[in-house]
Amino acid sequence: MRDPMPNAFVAGAVDLPETEAALVARRQNVLGPAYRLFYERPVHLVRGEGVWLYDPDGNAYLDTYNNVASVGHCHPHVLAATARQAGLLASHTRYLHDTVLTYAEKLLSHFPPALCHVMFTCTGSEANDLAIRLARAATGGMGVIVTENAYHGVTAAVAEFSPSLGPGVPLGAHVRTVPAPDARLGDPAVVFTAHVQAAIADLQRHGIRPAVLIVDTIFSSDGVFAQPAGFLAGAVAAIRAAGGLFIADEVQPGFGRTGDAMWGFQRHGVVPDMVSLGKPMGNGYPVAGLVMQPHVVADFGMKARYFNTFGGNAVAAATAMAVLEVVEGEGLQDNARTVGAMFAGALRGLGGPLGEVRQAGLFLGVDVLRDGAPDAALAGRIVNGLREERVLISATGPKGHVLKIRPPLVFGAEHVAIFAERLGRVLARL
Amino acid sequence: MRDPMPNAFVAGAVDLPETEAALVARRQNVLGPAYRLFYERPVHLVRGEGVWLYDPDGNAYLDTYNNVASVGHCHPHVLAATARQAGLLASHTRYLHDTVLTYAEKLLSHFPPALCHVMFTCTGSEANDLAIRLARAATGGMGVIVTENAYHGVTAAVAEFSPSLGPGVPLGAHVRTVPAPDARLGDPAVVFTAHVQAAIADLQRHGIRPAVLIVDTIFSSDGVFAQPAGFLAGAVAAIRAAGGLFIADEVQPGFGRTGDAMWGFQRHGVVPDMVSLGKPMGNGYPVAGLVMQPHVVADFGMKARYFNTFGGNAVAAATAMAVLEVVEGEGLQDNARTVGAMFAGALRGLGGPLGEVRQAGLFLGVDVLRDGAPDAALAGRIVNGLREERVLISATGPKGHVLKIRPPLVFGAEHVAIFAERLGRVLARL
Repeated sequence: MRDPMPNAFVAGAVDLPETEAALVARRQNVLGPAYRLFYERPVHLVRGEGVWLYDPDGNAYLDTYNNVASVGHCHPHVLAATARQAGLLASHTRYLHDTVLTYAEKLLSHFPPALCHVMFTCTGSEANDLAIRLARAATGGMGVIVTENAYHGVTAAVAEFSPSLGPGVPLGAHVRTVPAPDARLGDPAVVFTAHVQAAIADLQRHGIRPAVLIVDTIFSSDGVFAQPAGFLAGAVAAIRAAGGLFIADEVQPGFGRTGDAMWGFQRHGVVPDMVSLGKPMGNGYPVAGLVMQPHVVADFGMKARYFNTFGGNAVAAATAMAVLEVVEGEGLQDNARTVGAMFAGALRGLGGPLGEVRQAGLFLGVDVLRDGAPDAALAGRIVNGLREERVLISATGPKGHVLKIRPPLVFGAEHVAIFAERLGRVLARL
Repeated sequence: MRDPMPNAFVAGAVDLPETEAALVARRQNVLGPAYRLFYERPVHLVRGEGVWLYDPDGNAYLDTYNNVASVGHCHPHVLAATARQAGLLASHTRYLHDTVLTYAEKLLSHFPPALCHVMFTCTGSEANDLAIRLARAATGGMGVIVTENAYHGVTAAVAEFSPSLGPGVPLGAHVRTVPAPDARLGDPAVVFTAHVQAAIADLQRHGIRPAVLIVDTIFSSDGVFAQPAGFLAGAVAAIRAAGGLFIADEVQPGFGRTGDAMWGFQRHGVVPDMVSLGKPMGNGYPVAGLVMQPHVVADFGMKARYFNTFGGNAVAAATAMAVLEVVEGEGLQDNARTVGAMFAGALRGLGGPLGEVRQAGLFLGVDVLRDGAPDAALAGRIVNGLREERVLISATGPKGHVLKIRPPLVFGAEHVAIFAERLGRVLARL
């Protein structure tokens, strides 16, 4: 039983330069066996600026993968906000402080009015873990429905419904999976809804009350499924009819990345019961959160408390506020829409082993095929070929054959051109 | 069923100044009902330096409670390290980076050689959650033994074995609790061991294989039980004899606070299978971790991976390194030992309703009694009286009658004198 992570480094498979070989050896000594590096030849990075990352020799890598530094690596407005508040106070939420409230109010102004509470955590995993605690308390149910290769996080409770972690991490007995909403298998508005209804019926047949349907609204680890916008509505109605809640996992698509809207769920015309946030929220500072409708937390909040020591501390809030200011002030959602469309067009023109391009804003998935069939090994050669061209992406999907392209939102037309040129060279060498 | 948190603010019980009343109202609107403030009249803080915190009017509060800013609020060496690395790169652990390794090596140099791997998370809750995942994978067991009022964190899996969260948060069916090691009820080396043995037998009688005994090595939420050093050894031997592991939760006592040693477990002459770290590790920056013996993760690491997006990023590692440099360079473990002993002496001299003082280094618990019986209301009056004297502490223990005193480690003799004088005034007014 091997961990199935795409694009994982395998120790010993390739000779590494002395410096990097030494780092790999030290990692194995001190971090142990559960850590994974990317690439056949791992990348060693020491500096970042905008969409560029630099190795110790000063070589520049085009970052077309990292969605954490979403407003660009080392954005000066964000750095200044962090440093300013860190120099004043890193308070927690059991004392009064204005910053966490000002940020919460600004964040919630980007949501439909029904989603009017937010609770702060440090990671997306913690946000989804809190979501499942609240959902079980609110519904009295245990059942969880996710897609077949979903990833929602690494806590014990959330790993139980993150099948992309592989067969070494068992799913919970109360978890059911449904096929990803692949439009090639029929209209997802019909097919995905039917699969969710069948999963609900199967839970009920086992005496398990459905608690939640939770989806990453861009279906990233399933291979990126974004179109047609609107297909989620039937599945959301189905889980609610069964007494369960709908959780939109916006840890990857959120904060403007999908271009059409600030949040991926908005593309589908639904209002979730809860929305989990993470990765890009602090542009690298550890901050995450869970936005919710009040009915979800009303009973829980009477009989239990939630405290996360670092969650929503003043530095986290000030940093996240600065990130949101940059997203708004630099028009990054618009940029994601226009540059993302351009990016998809460029990829569709390249041909060769590239198949369907699925995209919303600056979140793109591209099938890699040989004779029309998914080919993970070929996808791996493209990912590693791009790494040698100093362009960073990775692979995803249950078969590992989908190129996963997810650059910082400050990616411009000139970067798309560089990417397309270098990918063209890689494809020509295959 | 009410949440039993000691020293919790109750909305509407006391009139608040306009500014603070407005902040409370905004909190209820945006953060919802699961958040709790401290004190009858919540404290509004805007700045910190060393052991002092300041409200918007510039009034100084003596911080005798916050163990996160362990090397002092806004320590310049730590701020500089954070800012420097944040300006270069906030990389993650799937690319090579020296900083996380240099920190891991330095951190591990403070542990017995058998504890030679470390994995990074963002919170102590995540560290304990990872610990239970690893323990269940390594032992094949599910059973967890904790003390009666233990607190280990807020993820779904960890809340199940954190009884101090109150009756609104049910314990797991596989969880057994044992009485805290209170030396007044008999030699803990004998009594605590016998309780753990009974819990093991009860798990086995239910067909549940024991996975772990996990204790906060200062037993903070149980009321602070530190003496006599060495009493844990028998309980650790018992869980191992039953095929389970011993986890030392050092989120509160770790990083020199107990004075005698860097970690609370060392006072007991045991070597845990895993050690969880958190709160003071980044002096406010969200960083935490789990140190372990290799046998715990060997099998898990083959078949599964662990990735925490922000955990061990370069900024977290650089910040944590700076904290450890200050702990070493300013001799804070020694300071905790000497000032902690002085502090305990001062408290023992005050008399009145103060009962037993239990202490290791700068972690102190003081019983509040009336006619020899625990009195939580009186403890609450002392905590709130000190707040009016601008000294911050809180209360703990299953009955809420124990004063919880846990200042930054840069606390000095002059601060003990201020504390004793102000507490004397509070006691005189009772």
